[in-house]
Amino acid sequence: MAITIRELAQALDAQGWGDLDLKVTGAAEPQATGPVGPEGGVIALAMSPKYATALQPGSMAILAEGMDPQAYGLKAAIFAPRPRLLMAGLTRAFDPGPDIAPGIHPTAVIDPSARLGEGAAVGPFVVIGADVTIGRGARIGPHVSIGRGSRLGDDVLLNAGVRIAHGVTAGHRLIVQSNAVIGGDGFSFVTPEESGIEEIRRTLGSRDAIKQQHWTRIHSLGGVEIGDDVEIGANSTIDRGTIRATRVGNGTKIDNLVMLGHNVTVGDDCLLCSQVGVAGSARIGNRVVLAGKVGVNDNIDVGDDVIAGGASKIFTRVPAGRVILGNPAVKMETQMEIQKAIRRLPRFAEQLARLQETVTRLLEKG
Amino acid sequence: MAITIRELAQALDAQGWGDLDLKVTGAAEPQATGPVGPEGGVIALAMSPKYATALQPGSMAILAEGMDPQAYGLKAAIFAPRPRLLMAGLTRAFDPGPDIAPGIHPTAVIDPSARLGEGAAVGPFVVIGADVTIGRGARIGPHVSIGRGSRLGDDVLLNAGVRIAHGVTAGHRLIVQSNAVIGGDGFSFVTPEESGIEEIRRTLGSRDAIKQQHWTRIHSLGGVEIGDDVEIGANSTIDRGTIRATRVGNGTKIDNLVMLGHNVTVGDDCLLCSQVGVAGSARIGNRVVLAGKVGVNDNIDVGDDVIAGGASKIFTRVPAGRVILGNPAVKMETQMEIQKAIRRLPRFAEQLARLQETVTRLLEKG
Amino acid sequence: MAITIRELAQALDAQGWGDLDLKVTGAAEPQATGPVGPEGGVIALAMSPKYATALQPGSMAILAEGMDPQAYGLKAAIFAPRPRLLMAGLTRAFDPGPDIAPGIHPTAVIDPSARLGEGAAVGPFVVIGADVTIGRGARIGPHVSIGRGSRLGDDVLLNAGVRIAHGVTAGHRLIVQSNAVIGGDGFSFVTPEESGIEEIRRTLGSRDAIKQQHWTRIHSLGGVEIGDDVEIGANSTIDRGTIRATRVGNGTKIDNLVMLGHNVTVGDDCLLCSQVGVAGSARIGNRVVLAGKVGVNDNIDVGDDVIAGGASKIFTRVPAGRVILGNPAVKMETQMEIQKAIRRLPRFAEQLARLQETVTRLLEKG
Repeated sequence: MAITIRELAQALDAQGWGDLDLKVTGAAEPQATGPVGPEGGVIALAMSPKYATALQPGSMAILAEGMDPQAYGLKAAIFAPRPRLLMAGLTRAFDPGPDIAPGIHPTAVIDPSARLGEGAAVGPFVVIGADVTIGRGARIGPHVSIGRGSRLGDDVLLNAGVRIAHGVTAGHRLIVQSNAVIGGDGFSFVTPEESGIEEIRRTLGSRDAIKQQHWTRIHSLGGVEIGDDVEIGANSTIDRGTIRATRVGNGTKIDNLVMLGHNVTVGDDCLLCSQVGVAGSARIGNRVVLAGKVGVNDNIDVGDDVIAGGASKIFTRVPAGRVILGNPAVKMETQMEIQKAIRRLPRFAEQLARLQETVTRLLEKG
Repeated sequence: MAITIRELAQALDAQGWGDLDLKVTGAAEPQATGPVGPEGGVIALAMSPKYATALQPGSMAILAEGMDPQAYGLKAAIFAPRPRLLMAGLTRAFDPGPDIAPGIHPTAVIDPSARLGEGAAVGPFVVIGADVTIGRGARIGPHVSIGRGSRLGDDVLLNAGVRIAHGVTAGHRLIVQSNAVIGGDGFSFVTPEESGIEEIRRTLGSRDAIKQQHWTRIHSLGGVEIGDDVEIGANSTIDRGTIRATRVGNGTKIDNLVMLGHNVTVGDDCLLCSQVGVAGSARIGNRVVLAGKVGVNDNIDVGDDVIAGGASKIFTRVPAGRVILGNPAVKMETQMEIQKAIRRLPRFAEQLARLQETVTRLLEKG
Repeated sequence: MAITIRELAQALDAQGWGDLDLKVTGAAEPQATGPVGPEGGVIALAMSPKYATALQPGSMAILAEGMDPQAYGLKAAIFAPRPRLLMAGLTRAFDPGPDIAPGIHPTAVIDPSARLGEGAAVGPFVVIGADVTIGRGARIGPHVSIGRGSRLGDDVLLNAGVRIAHGVTAGHRLIVQSNAVIGGDGFSFVTPEESGIEEIRRTLGSRDAIKQQHWTRIHSLGGVEIGDDVEIGANSTIDRGTIRATRVGNGTKIDNLVMLGHNVTVGDDCLLCSQVGVAGSARIGNRVVLAGKVGVNDNIDVGDDVIAGGASKIFTRVPAGRVILGNPAVKMETQMEIQKAIRRLPRFAEQLARLQETVTRLLEKG
């Protein structure tokens, strides 16, 4: 894979400079690059002056606008108007993608009633069940299994070991990282009589006689419905709904080791970072960002455009647009004040004790 | 799968009403159902008046006791004495189960010394090791592996990609969701001399000279012992013990992405929700409920009937029957008081400052 | 597997006592052992007087130095100078290891260009891609997949279902537990214009007009580089870097369900316990210990020899050698003081109110 500086600048919607015919074969940090000959080579990413100090004369680089390629002695350069955005185009251009050969591997076990669109690449030991339909251009890694009746759109990429159970639907361009599980049974159990959890929810914490009871399983008849342009991280799990589907909206990106419980709905264009957990029947709005290790209680609403800082634990409804932090999560400004006050607590305690003493002395005098 | 209202009511140990011969083919939320013809159809779940508003005349519904089917114009109804409990029977009746065909798939690699009871369904690419024994009616999904000498009871369900290592035993009716790992090696290491962790446990936080040391592995010779009626969620991990087994009691249900460390014992009828972590050698009693993201320190005891709220972090022994919350976890009432006080902290700070000023003025006057 | 007391003592670099020719076939807790005949049997682990009370006369035991084997009526004993360290040697001696038969299973799909060193054991349904190189003595369990061009050293052990993507390198003696994923794509996205997260990082929490934007993917061109003697736990995930590799140093041990984000670097001889999450581009020093459920923010430094207590959330840089705890994590001593003060908060509130009253009365009198 090699394209010229001219073609790369064009692909990135950016401005080229210098020898536009040099060939680019990849991109790397400045310290991993060097001078290139007439045949070109690897382009350095130096989109801030800080990174540019490691540039060597005679090399090629991507710079931020306003930086001077001649000052670094470059042979060629591309100017990035918004560096992070340019990274998207650049990395896409050079990504060879996962290791899935074209065509259907002879070891794959595909039910005769399943339908795959044209251009499918299916790896060794894949298992596809009855009545599954998958659109065009699917890439399915080794050891993936897809259960009866599931329906996926065009251009999906399922990496090695992904589990898609029966009755799951997803739109176009779904990307799932290895060993993620979509459509496992919900975690839903009931006791013959009121359980301890139901009791403390009703009484806000106090309990009468504790009874021995066994848990009976509520089965999950709903599936999982996933929109277009969704990504799901490695070893994440999305459980099926009880009598309706668990839902993930268009454009939502989910990181590794994330848990979405049964009946959860997540809106469009959300970011759910690693180790987030959303308990059963919670509703997450559109464009919500949950940072790493955030937890969301069952059955609550998190409004559109909410941003929750790392490790926030959300126990109650959050209005749209709010930025929250902490355990329990509160407005970020409030949390900052609380943290400041908590750090001063030992000093408060001292001050209070001294004040008490002073007042006691005043009283004695009086 | 279709049964009459009469049969369904009987199966659910509930009262039927109206045209008891109508056929039920499934269950859904009221808005996803409608009027049914003489051939029957999907029954609406409307077990509280709130949900019942979406019922359409001419449909069938499951109602709470005391609700009036005629007021909604229903053709047939079933009255649920305890709605959540009825959900268990209802969903069981209509669950088609995972996608595992009867019989043993020809691609499965089963050691000749392994013994499977009658009625086994074994999916493609399953690997079963030497001396494994499995009871009657096993359902084993694609890509499952079971190591040498493991023993499972009757009617187990192992979904696609489950890993059961060597030397694991489990009782009847075990259900394991996809990609869970039972019997991985424990996380147990030792340094030639006292390590930093051992030092701060001894000194409660202070450290002398820091030494460079490498970690040496303590191997896990114990297995995992699991009782009857246990469920284990997707991508959860239960490590094997060091010289005795890690143990999970009868009737205990474990959600997705849960971690049980080496030598842990969990009692009977517990609920361990998603992303719970229990560190090595901790002992969890019977009927304990750990909500999502709860953490339990190594080597401590959590008594019978303890309920720990979401994201609680348990660092020390918890007596039986206690309801706890927070990080560090304390009695729920105490945590509630603490949270209230913390929210008022900034106001305390102000009040204290004003009081200090007042007293200073008093002193100056005096 | 059976060796004499003499051989075992020698292997453990410890002192034997009594009938040194007795054969040892395994080790267990005292209550699971008993008197042995001339053919030997299982040795009891009784390395503190507490455990020794369950010893039966006529049995064999490993004791701490200074304990008296005659007092317990033992036939033979081994004295452990540092009990935990001895456990390492002892358990290694008796670990039969995972269930992977020697040789290459005929169902494995290995690209002709891949090179495995001598002595490889490769289980059923393994998939190894083009240009993969693996050193001598590899043990690779069933259903493992290794992507194009990855390079592993000698004596690696990959348990069932492990996923190693393309472009991953690792040193000697790598051990990976089942279903772990190494080399999944990083979680890195960008919006065409400034996103809400970028905005609140810039403004420290406040937001202007909220815009609807979609996330564009930044692909991961970097791989993962892992040193010698590393272990990675079940269902853990290590993402590939963006333009350079994500890195894990020599001797570092990683527990189950741990997440290392893209571009993270972890130094040598670290311990990362279960459910730890390290966000993108964070840098962890050497000999760092992160206890269970610790979270590390993206882009920050955690210095050498830092120890973070259970569930600590690290938002900012941590200097070398510090022992930290809490959310947000602070010095352990400070956290202890804070916790003490927080528990006394309700009493502070009362004291403050009473003091206020007293002062008010004083003022009225004055």
